[in-house]
Amino acid sequence: MATLPFELPVWKELATQAAKMERPENHLRLLLADPNRLTAFSLKDAGLFYDFSRQRLNSDILTLLLDLAIACQLSDRFRAMMNGAKLNTTEKRAALHTATRSFQSTPLLVDGQDVLPTLKAVRSQIKAFSAAIHSAELTGSTGKPFDTVVVIGIGGSYLGTEFVAQALGAYADKSIDLYFLSNVDIHDFGRLAKRVDPATTLWIVISKSYTTAETMANAQQAEAFVRSSGLDPADHFVTVTSKGSPGDDPAAAKLASFHMFDYIGGRYSVTSAVGGVPLSLYLGYDRFEHFLQGAEEMDQHAAYAPADQNLPLVAALINVWNYYHLGYRVQGIIPYAAPLSKLAPHIQQLYMESNGKGVTAEGQIYSEPPGFVVFGEPGTNAQHSFFQLAHQGRPFPIDFIGVLIPQYEQYKNQSRGVTNHQELWANLLSQPQALALGQANDDKARCFSGNRPSSTILLQDLTPANIGRLLAFYEARTVYEAFLLGINPFDQFGVELGKTIASKVRKTIAQKNETPEHAFQDQDPITRFYLETLFRGKF
Amino acid sequence: MATLPFELPVWKELATQAAKMERPENHLRLLLADPNRLTAFSLKDAGLFYDFSRQRLNSDILTLLLDLAIACQLSDRFRAMMNGAKLNTTEKRAALHTATRSFQSTPLLVDGQDVLPTLKAVRSQIKAFSAAIHSAELTGSTGKPFDTVVVIGIGGSYLGTEFVAQALGAYADKSIDLYFLSNVDIHDFGRLAKRVDPATTLWIVISKSYTTAETMANAQQAEAFVRSSGLDPADHFVTVTSKGSPGDDPAAAKLASFHMFDYIGGRYSVTSAVGGVPLSLYLGYDRFEHFLQGAEEMDQHAAYAPADQNLPLVAALINVWNYYHLGYRVQGIIPYAAPLSKLAPHIQQLYMESNGKGVTAEGQIYSEPPGFVVFGEPGTNAQHSFFQLAHQGRPFPIDFIGVLIPQYEQYKNQSRGVTNHQELWANLLSQPQALALGQANDDKARCFSGNRPSSTILLQDLTPANIGRLLAFYEARTVYEAFLLGINPFDQFGVELGKTIASKVRKTIAQKNETPEHAFQDQDPITRFYLETLFRGKF
Repeated sequence: MATLPFELPVWKELATQAAKMERPENHLRLLLADPNRLTAFSLKDAGLFYDFSRQRLNSDILTLLLDLAIACQLSDRFRAMMNGAKLNTTEKRAALHTATRSFQSTPLLVDGQDVLPTLKAVRSQIKAFSAAIHSAELTGSTGKPFDTVVVIGIGGSYLGTEFVAQALGAYADKSIDLYFLSNVDIHDFGRLAKRVDPATTLWIVISKSYTTAETMANAQQAEAFVRSSGLDPADHFVTVTSKGSPGDDPAAAKLASFHMFDYIGGRYSVTSAVGGVPLSLYLGYDRFEHFLQGAEEMDQHAAYAPADQNLPLVAALINVWNYYHLGYRVQGIIPYAAPLSKLAPHIQQLYMESNGKGVTAEGQIYSEPPGFVVFGEPGTNAQHSFFQLAHQGRPFPIDFIGVLIPQYEQYKNQSRGVTNHQELWANLLSQPQALALGQANDDKARCFSGNRPSSTILLQDLTPANIGRLLAFYEARTVYEAFLLGINPFDQFGVELGKTIASKVRKTIAQKNETPEHAFQDQDPITRFYLETLFRGKF
Repeated sequence: MATLPFELPVWKELATQAAKMERPENHLRLLLADPNRLTAFSLKDAGLFYDFSRQRLNSDILTLLLDLAIACQLSDRFRAMMNGAKLNTTEKRAALHTATRSFQSTPLLVDGQDVLPTLKAVRSQIKAFSAAIHSAELTGSTGKPFDTVVVIGIGGSYLGTEFVAQALGAYADKSIDLYFLSNVDIHDFGRLAKRVDPATTLWIVISKSYTTAETMANAQQAEAFVRSSGLDPADHFVTVTSKGSPGDDPAAAKLASFHMFDYIGGRYSVTSAVGGVPLSLYLGYDRFEHFLQGAEEMDQHAAYAPADQNLPLVAALINVWNYYHLGYRVQGIIPYAAPLSKLAPHIQQLYMESNGKGVTAEGQIYSEPPGFVVFGEPGTNAQHSFFQLAHQGRPFPIDFIGVLIPQYEQYKNQSRGVTNHQELWANLLSQPQALALGQANDDKARCFSGNRPSSTILLQDLTPANIGRLLAFYEARTVYEAFLLGINPFDQFGVELGKTIASKVRKTIAQKNETPEHAFQDQDPITRFYLETLFRGKF
């Protein structure tokens, strides 16, 4: 049984320290008066700069947190994960998203089989396939080259790829437009169908089991649409799915099928074929590989850097400190970079689905269930939206993310003596300070209590490798936090009950479609009311 | 001084009731066993159906909450607001967003002046202007008709319009593409500049003061871009701004200038010229007016329906109950309708900027500062993202929103015996039930504690009028909650300190741009480090 932190002496020492942090002399304004604050509370490695000087901690607290990391053998567990240990205990699976971006040659055994050659073969297949599409060696039914790719997938088959595609849009020079069809809502399909030319559109259906209700419904709509345009779906569809799933059936006509594996969870899968196929088509395979290399660099850092130098590990410790000891319940992710606009939705899934659990990996119920609510919008937009509450309402910790060199350097127009990028940075630098320092005012409405914690993460620029590093940083942070708290971050049983009930409701709707006199007698009164309303078309 | 609820006897009675609600016999599973639960805890009026049967309350609690509404004279205050009372006390202004969609003829006096004729004149100006653009009577410098509109604005000058445009995209039949340029980040401008044809693009610069740093920087980039394309900005720009602002200068060449007023706050301004100009260009003025009519219907309902029949008022009472008595800190907004994908970001601003305050309107500090963190994504996407935490982590209340009739009825393909829209509804109906009921299981990882509250709101369809109703519902709910808690929901002093610091940082950057030897001596060590890093271009 893994060591849980809550009963450890160091946990109680942290609680004592947390009480001390509430004292006026430990207000961030005073902690920040130390001229060495930034040096003492920042790290730089694996291409990221991580500044936690404006977190509410001091060196004693950091030492205790690092003690906790050692007591809970976090680095050992992380390396065990990377080496194929079946840490997804509830599902008896390894968790090897790190293997999807491994360029190592040492064998990596799962159930006695080296998985690396298999994963490398998938990458080679992706490379060849995307080259064939880009060279128009492979085309649609009419012989026209593909200029549009639609990913049909939901959750982990979609959010990571959307984040990376958005972040690297400036590299999309393959004359391919990339769209996502995730929601089963017919509005999603309807809008897309108005937009794309079926003759030049390639559909990528992504589902590990190839039974996801939303994805199957959308794939069928798309197939009907392709057929009704006089095209052969066999020329316009590829699948990314488990070996042997219904989507991998060699008898079912399609351009290609790429495999995903049960040791890679959906929300950790953007570095697998899930992201690899669409991103290689959109950006070119080489960019996808650079993205993988950045992620691998961060994985190696996460696995082997000493605890006190380890960015994702320290960040995970701070998360636990903020949640359990300082009592924060929400975390903001605010990138000062519009291309990172889908980072928060991706981390929202990655983190909340991984660590938003009610029980430990061994089934012990948490008295305080872990898991921040994660949300965010890019800055400065967020400043003009919800930052009123961040500054004067109930505080919550924020990750600020900055990019040193922007992609569009040709626009040098200055306003008030600064470029747009400098204006953006003026705000990036000011918000953490304003939150931390606060300001007194006789007019209470203009009073800022300050003492609001944040971190700042810097990227040099928005290259594929740096996006890989950033992604892997958040993945490793999530996993480290889970290991510390005894969470299994790789299962998601919480989504099962809704699915079970939906499947019963679907069945009764299907019955009604078949037999108009079907009266929903088997449903509870509320569900019955809604079903009658749906079929009546009026409330 | 307004009556605050916290010292009222009824508040203490509510606290007693809240303690009782924690008992096992008040689990939602048992409350929902009452076959009349839905009838007792749902309302239908002003085009919306509002089901709060799955909130953790009973009729005693509802009665107490309604007593609270009466004790705090909520409806009187709402009507006073609509009649021009200066309820924005800290800024000594009226709060008359409701007047922007008033089609009443009774004069509405502010400082002795009837504002309605002024607001109607702005609407007439918008109608004539959009007609002239649609008929190509007004064109850009080269004589080509406009086919692209870019809104340059941030926060309240952007989020509401984006929400409505996205919701009503199916009505966009004027051959106009609509884009938003909000963030000062040069990536935003760079991407847009690659996408639009300057010869056929109309830029709408929206800023009440016409001094908003981001908007001014973007407007200047756009102007440089227009000039560098050999076009005359006078033919390609309009402004929406306060009378007499720098953007209203008749000497500055532009196509047109539309007025906004200090009695309409940014986040409440989508029914003013802020939304009116872009939405009329995108959808046609008639649709914009239908949208206003829907909003007005909800305003009238909010002002005159009895408390126990009043949708936004009851919803506000439930918010207060959930936040202060049941201790929830986060609210999810989950529309099961992809066109409502920008509802959550809009309500996030509307609500968090309005009610995320540290002090009452009279400057009294809250011991428990009000204001949920509001976030959300459309369902079913959200189910595959963060619903793991919603089902098994720390609970938070959710607004589910459903649409009875979708816009794309031509796609009738069925999967598993149901259409996409029926599949969507199967999920919409199942999630609130799963959250409320929960399910026991010997396997703790598959255990659902249930008792997780939600509301369900239905719209008949996604017409302009219904979007107006939904918008006004959330506006009225926000304002009602503020009135109950003594908040001034119309100011936002919380954003001031960040602006002040940013302006100092901008100044020092501008100095460095001017004088390369400038060494940031006036800055604190952390800010100085970042500024040096920015200018070095490397960390």
